[in-house]
Amino acid sequence: MSESSAKKKNPKGRRVGLVIVHTGNGKGKTTAAIGTAFRAVGVGFKVKMIQFIKGSWDYGELHSAQKLGNFEIVPMGEGFTWETKNRDRDTAVAWKTWEACRAAIEENRHDLLIFDEINNAIQYGYLDISVVIDALEKKPPEMHVILTGRDAHPDLIDVADLVTEMREIKHPFHRGIYAQRGIEY
Amino acid sequence: MSESSAKKKNPKGRRVGLVIVHTGNGKGKTTAAIGTAFRAVGVGFKVKMIQFIKGSWDYGELHSAQKLGNFEIVPMGEGFTWETKNRDRDTAVAWKTWEACRAAIEENRHDLLIFDEINNAIQYGYLDISVVIDALEKKPPEMHVILTGRDAHPDLIDVADLVTEMREIKHPFHRGIYAQRGIEY
Repeated sequence: MSESSAKKKNPKGRRVGLVIVHTGNGKGKTTAAIGTAFRAVGVGFKVKMIQFIKGSWDYGELHSAQKLGNFEIVPMGEGFTWETKNRDRDTAVAWKTWEACRAAIEENRHDLLIFDEINNAIQYGYLDISVVIDALEKKPPEMHVILTGRDAHPDLIDVADLVTEMREIKHPFHRGIYAQRGIEY
Repeated sequence: MSESSAKKKNPKGRRVGLVIVHTGNGKGKTTAAIGTAFRAVGVGFKVKMIQFIKGSWDYGELHSAQKLGNFEIVPMGEGFTWETKNRDRDTAVAWKTWEACRAAIEENRHDLLIFDEINNAIQYGYLDISVVIDALEKKPPEMHVILTGRDAHPDLIDVADLVTEMREIKHPFHRGIYAQRGIEY
């Protein structure tokens, strides 16, 4: 147990900001984060999700988010796919997105922050893991942060409180069924 | 590939109702289902979730669901924990809950049904897997169904289109941190 996690020991009911990681090759990493946002908003929390990749969550989801009220979605990586082969541009976008994450931590206006697909930016070497961990260690103690994406860095797993791997057992694409609107995108 | 799944082969964009399973010992099975509901409602789908266990999703979540509009949550297993040691009562509650699921399939008024924690009812032997599979095979072809819970039955995985295992890598309880309101319950 690290020193910082030992400090987090708490009597039942006391609020402790968790660092949560959703990783693995399966579906549900972002979806479970949004499900958590749904629950958090339900108990009166303010939630912000910053997206490193313009993902498959789109107009419909934003529309639902607006209805919920306290759930803000910030798509930073517009059109960003990590496949541009333009490393300088990708690195610049990743750092700009991270800057928004870091600012959200410091501003301390939300109970839950979601850094969606940040693990990919770290994995590709666009973002420095030590900078991310430093910011997480300095976060307000009651703030929850969820970090999603495949291939979570071992150092991140080390500092995290709750880590779940979403593992693909079976996917319809392998049977010739294309992704379904409203469910998968 | 089974005959029924071969029939589901579709050109890109055509709607095919998926049978989706969220299983495993980790967090996120129900949460990802609710995240999917959130997305589905966003594109205009009608969603109903029937809960086999009075789970950790409670007032806050129901409040958010009401705001979303087309997302109905039906908690059938009020106070039901699978630990009553009263097998007759548990079996009766499981069948009553299943009856609501079967009726929802037949009524065909929803685009997405979620049978939350049904896998546990099957695993404990309270519900017959063949009855469940029979109903899934007769469902309207465009209807999506998500079945959650640990220890999904192999026959269910066999007929499912999309199966994800949520695997626990690290949990804060092991470090003395109790479950956090708004995030875990």
